[in-house]
Amino acid sequence: MNYPNKKINVAVLGATGAVGQRFVQLLCDHPWFHISALAASERNVGKRYEEACGWHLSDVMPEAVREMIIQPVEPVLDAQIVFSALPAQVARETEPLFAQAGYAVCSNSSAFRLDADVPVIIPEVNADHLVLLKRQKEQRGWEGLLVTSPNCTTTGIAIPLKPIDMAFGLKKVMAVSMQAVSGAGYPGLSYLDIQDNVIPFIKGEEEKIERESRALLGRMAGKQRLDADFTFSAQANRVAVSEGHTICLSLELEEKAEIAAVQDVLRDFRAPIYRPNLPSMPLFPIIVRDEEDRPQPRKDRNAGQGMQVSVGRIRPCPLLDVRMVSVVHNTLRGAASGAILNAELLVAEGYLS
Amino acid sequence: MNYPNKKINVAVLGATGAVGQRFVQLLCDHPWFHISALAASERNVGKRYEEACGWHLSDVMPEAVREMIIQPVEPVLDAQIVFSALPAQVARETEPLFAQAGYAVCSNSSAFRLDADVPVIIPEVNADHLVLLKRQKEQRGWEGLLVTSPNCTTTGIAIPLKPIDMAFGLKKVMAVSMQAVSGAGYPGLSYLDIQDNVIPFIKGEEEKIERESRALLGRMAGKQRLDADFTFSAQANRVAVSEGHTICLSLELEEKAEIAAVQDVLRDFRAPIYRPNLPSMPLFPIIVRDEEDRPQPRKDRNAGQGMQVSVGRIRPCPLLDVRMVSVVHNTLRGAASGAILNAELLVAEGYLS
Amino acid sequence: MNYPNKKINVAVLGATGAVGQRFVQLLCDHPWFHISALAASERNVGKRYEEACGWHLSDVMPEAVREMIIQPVEPVLDAQIVFSALPAQVARETEPLFAQAGYAVCSNSSAFRLDADVPVIIPEVNADHLVLLKRQKEQRGWEGLLVTSPNCTTTGIAIPLKPIDMAFGLKKVMAVSMQAVSGAGYPGLSYLDIQDNVIPFIKGEEEKIERESRALLGRMAGKQRLDADFTFSAQANRVAVSEGHTICLSLELEEKAEIAAVQDVLRDFRAPIYRPNLPSMPLFPIIVRDEEDRPQPRKDRNAGQGMQVSVGRIRPCPLLDVRMVSVVHNTLRGAASGAILNAELLVAEGYLS
Amino acid sequence: MNYPNKKINVAVLGATGAVGQRFVQLLCDHPWFHISALAASERNVGKRYEEACGWHLSDVMPEAVREMIIQPVEPVLDAQIVFSALPAQVARETEPLFAQAGYAVCSNSSAFRLDADVPVIIPEVNADHLVLLKRQKEQRGWEGLLVTSPNCTTTGIAIPLKPIDMAFGLKKVMAVSMQAVSGAGYPGLSYLDIQDNVIPFIKGEEEKIERESRALLGRMAGKQRLDADFTFSAQANRVAVSEGHTICLSLELEEKAEIAAVQDVLRDFRAPIYRPNLPSMPLFPIIVRDEEDRPQPRKDRNAGQGMQVSVGRIRPCPLLDVRMVSVVHNTLRGAASGAILNAELLVAEGYLS
Repeated sequence: MNYPNKKINVAVLGATGAVGQRFVQLLCDHPWFHISALAASERNVGKRYEEACGWHLSDVMPEAVREMIIQPVEPVLDAQIVFSALPAQVARETEPLFAQAGYAVCSNSSAFRLDADVPVIIPEVNADHLVLLKRQKEQRGWEGLLVTSPNCTTTGIAIPLKPIDMAFGLKKVMAVSMQAVSGAGYPGLSYLDIQDNVIPFIKGEEEKIERESRALLGRMAGKQRLDADFTFSAQANRVAVSEGHTICLSLELEEKAEIAAVQDVLRDFRAPIYRPNLPSMPLFPIIVRDEEDRPQPRKDRNAGQGMQVSVGRIRPCPLLDVRMVSVVHNTLRGAASGAILNAELLVAEGYLS
Repeated sequence: MNYPNKKINVAVLGATGAVGQRFVQLLCDHPWFHISALAASERNVGKRYEEACGWHLSDVMPEAVREMIIQPVEPVLDAQIVFSALPAQVARETEPLFAQAGYAVCSNSSAFRLDADVPVIIPEVNADHLVLLKRQKEQRGWEGLLVTSPNCTTTGIAIPLKPIDMAFGLKKVMAVSMQAVSGAGYPGLSYLDIQDNVIPFIKGEEEKIERESRALLGRMAGKQRLDADFTFSAQANRVAVSEGHTICLSLELEEKAEIAAVQDVLRDFRAPIYRPNLPSMPLFPIIVRDEEDRPQPRKDRNAGQGMQVSVGRIRPCPLLDVRMVSVVHNTLRGAASGAILNAELLVAEGYLS
Repeated sequence: MNYPNKKINVAVLGATGAVGQRFVQLLCDHPWFHISALAASERNVGKRYEEACGWHLSDVMPEAVREMIIQPVEPVLDAQIVFSALPAQVARETEPLFAQAGYAVCSNSSAFRLDADVPVIIPEVNADHLVLLKRQKEQRGWEGLLVTSPNCTTTGIAIPLKPIDMAFGLKKVMAVSMQAVSGAGYPGLSYLDIQDNVIPFIKGEEEKIERESRALLGRMAGKQRLDADFTFSAQANRVAVSEGHTICLSLELEEKAEIAAVQDVLRDFRAPIYRPNLPSMPLFPIIVRDEEDRPQPRKDRNAGQGMQVSVGRIRPCPLLDVRMVSVVHNTLRGAASGAILNAELLVAEGYLS
Repeated sequence: MNYPNKKINVAVLGATGAVGQRFVQLLCDHPWFHISALAASERNVGKRYEEACGWHLSDVMPEAVREMIIQPVEPVLDAQIVFSALPAQVARETEPLFAQAGYAVCSNSSAFRLDADVPVIIPEVNADHLVLLKRQKEQRGWEGLLVTSPNCTTTGIAIPLKPIDMAFGLKKVMAVSMQAVSGAGYPGLSYLDIQDNVIPFIKGEEEKIERESRALLGRMAGKQRLDADFTFSAQANRVAVSEGHTICLSLELEEKAEIAAVQDVLRDFRAPIYRPNLPSMPLFPIIVRDEEDRPQPRKDRNAGQGMQVSVGRIRPCPLLDVRMVSVVHNTLRGAASGAILNAELLVAEGYLS
């Protein structure tokens, strides 16, 4: 495993938005990375970050970035890694330019997530998919590379599914999500639309969850990803919660299992190739809650600095085999922290030399 | 069909509680019924209703009941029908005393809901189950009778399931609910527990939903109810909504059906034995919403004075056959109005002579 | 007093916005007015109302307007009265064109509210200010006329201040408001900004409240309005409430008064010139609540179809003389219904001949 | 100044309640104090803390206390200091027994707060009032002592008033509070009562704020506290916020002052007798916010680990002299952390020998 011998310069693309601010907040304290550039859309270029950014996180804006001048989103930034919080349509045009110019692009956007030569990665789930980067280099001829992290809800599903799939095999998955408002960005939803309400629809979300989950649990055949072939039905709802997605899961297994056995594989789950020294990786990616009414987003979203998925209510399903509830922090594990963990993995695996 | 030729005296048991207040509010304006007595627990007996009751509905307390004196919950009330909003454990002891003494008891409590000789009724779904009252009379020897209305969430499920079951047959049902806070009564949940949160557990609720749904869709064989035999998996969640339960449904049908055909049977559904003149019965028990993001509890709970169930997002399911979302007003159709509609049915069917 | 002998054609300017929708909802049922035209900004012109409008009120969109075609905001509409829900900057340019072309413009915008020849009216408070319309005609040479209704918070203050000023004289007013989110229009505030929060600032609001209150309680000297000269300190806050502004008031009076006397003048208040037949005017503009914890926006905002201001907690002030709390429905009495009541007054007073 | 040379044993009375849990959470990490006993009401005695306590804070219950056995609230606990989170009526009977038995009682209850020989203390505001303990000892003959911390809202008012009073003198204060739900304890308010609502009344709160503020800013004349004599009008409201009280203040000063001068004295304020080494005391008790829309409870309540009061919108008042908005964390600075800081002061001042 590789460690950086000095801090690596990183840039944030789309630094003023909701996920961009999370990137900035997390990277200011990061042991391996140093923010050397902030980039955003045309209208903010040339402004001081403090001036351009309607900072809306609870903690105050870190001193280190207040006076930084916003640069254009062009591949001339002084950085090795760029974290992209760009909207999908902008990402589609811009991220390849950065990859071509030699940057390692760690993207939170959905633009390239399911391309055959672009890995979508959760290190604890499918670090081996990084081998797709070889195919990416061959096909695209890029100097740099592009790695993506999955949709926030997918993250809260794929992490508990992984150890269950390894232990028992997955045949069918039914997921109903109750997603936090911050998942829609900032300003996102109007208070008048979501207070005292549930909105049982999020555009494109159900398809993303179904397809990305099969990709993440897919296996590599040489330089090709073979998506997992379980059947998946996802239903996405928006609820009046600020942060933390809750997902009701019902699963059918290849091999029947006792509830206690399912609890055990979740509780014992660690990354397949255990990398103890990635700064953002929790020792246990999953916390199993035994209380009858947990996990709950307000109480469990911050587990492990927002990097642990909490799973509870593991019980039989009258229709499939086993039911459970999962809670994931959507803007940390499900967005900014997830992409940073991917960058740490790239460093550790030697992709940045 | 029978109509009352003058107003029928009715009493409310548990008149000061959350559902009790709804009963009072609805009955003050009722064309067939007249509130002749209010009863509540010992500590409120002898007080004026206005004084005993922490009225929490938005509309003001009706003039007609302010000065009524609270009576004990004993079968000496001047009334033909009693509406029971008693807690289950009190109901279990008290409701039989009223039935024995000759009252028609319309109960919203779960105490006797699944007894073999106690009908649990939604008039549009299973009015024919009233025949159980004959068995009830034979077995219990009561002068009066006891009819119950189902759990609020069950109501929002059984109404859309009924026409689908009639048209195509039901094999499997998966339901995930997002239930309003008022379903837990008043004061019910602490603001600190449910704001910015989801609680993925409601004690006993999943079992009630599964069993009552099969009872409601069961068929009568003489004086015996044969419960429907579809497989049912229910998962119950509490969300930060004041009124209106939302339920994500996924169904497997006996006979495959086009989505359009499912929409049609829902849209066209009327009570099997159509009774145009029950005052609380809507012409169409179901509204089908075509918008991609409806139904929503805040926008749809009041449809048809809170008596219509709104159904939308009717679409294929990758795992079973068809998915949809249902919204029901939990304290109206799902509680007080539902029990009043049952009383109207009893009158119309001649059970009160 | 004049009554219309047939329905008067009216148009709504800005018909697709938050206040515009309220206008449409209220006017569809109005005994004197008939909606003959809907106008909105360029991008919606030519569309059916149903298609152009993201209807967000709880009640469904009235049938009568669904198929109406949106017209441009230009003074060629088939109507005698136009209700303006235009933003201030658009109103500034457009409303004079309508007034010049002969329309009676009833505006909810702040654009002309404090011009010396434009009456800002609450019929129960200052109907006599309509005399300014003579000056308006002389100075502007308009065929039609322009009348405005005050800011929503001002409305909830001026109505209770009026009878107190008449009875005892006002020297000083301290007001702290807790304003509903709908006051900021739709979509208005982001859920992420206002949930679990108070925002102690609303741009321009405190100045509007202070100035408009003095205008409304001013007296006419011929064709000139002399603003009232009490001292006024207003502090405006936004809170997580959907509808209904709450205002804490503390007053110093010219002539000392018992609390009971203040309660009496509030309770007995009727419009100075009593007009029993304006359809939107409540018999009593103020409800005095005696409970120790009322008024509350959720419980009291709908009093009198949202046209009555609820006042409670009337008690001595250790610093000035008397304190109280007022609740007003901000999008009904404080916006659309208020402007419609003004139009009714114009009709009754013969300004529309 | 005295420092403890080893950790001091402390007990928490009322350890299972809302403030009790905060005490436990904060004391588990405290550099000077060690939790040696937890006491609670009869029905919890003998249970493990984990079992007795419906822990509702976001962070998990500290390991160190899970297995501790709840003891009765009787003065036989192994501790030097007891922190009391008892309800007022229990505190009134029990706290004197502990003080008599030699314990230093740091109470968050209102029971003795305004007794002439019981100091109510905010160390930065009136540490000199500790001299009342001499009078307390003389009058009551206690081995130990009793010190109280003020009401949570009072805390958010007295801290900014102190430097202004010192610099310019206070003549009049008008305060309107918007208080968080957690101030009412747990479970406290029903979701159904406070969601989408404001409750403009909190029993006894306005009187407490007015009287305690004058006590805190009073001066000592020998062993007698002379309360400050400014006029004070407080109006208390409950809003839908979980934690953090917001207070709109309007002040009249003895000596007129520029706004900039008021800002400066707030910004520069430190404890009169500066004690750099009390672990819970922030370097600056006040943060002055320059943004036009701050402070806000969700963004500012956690400033300085919840120990700093945020003040903003400092501007002239048309009626008195200066207006401002204050935000204080009600369960940290306003309750548990405040009482712990008082205990640190007692240690530092040598009252525990």
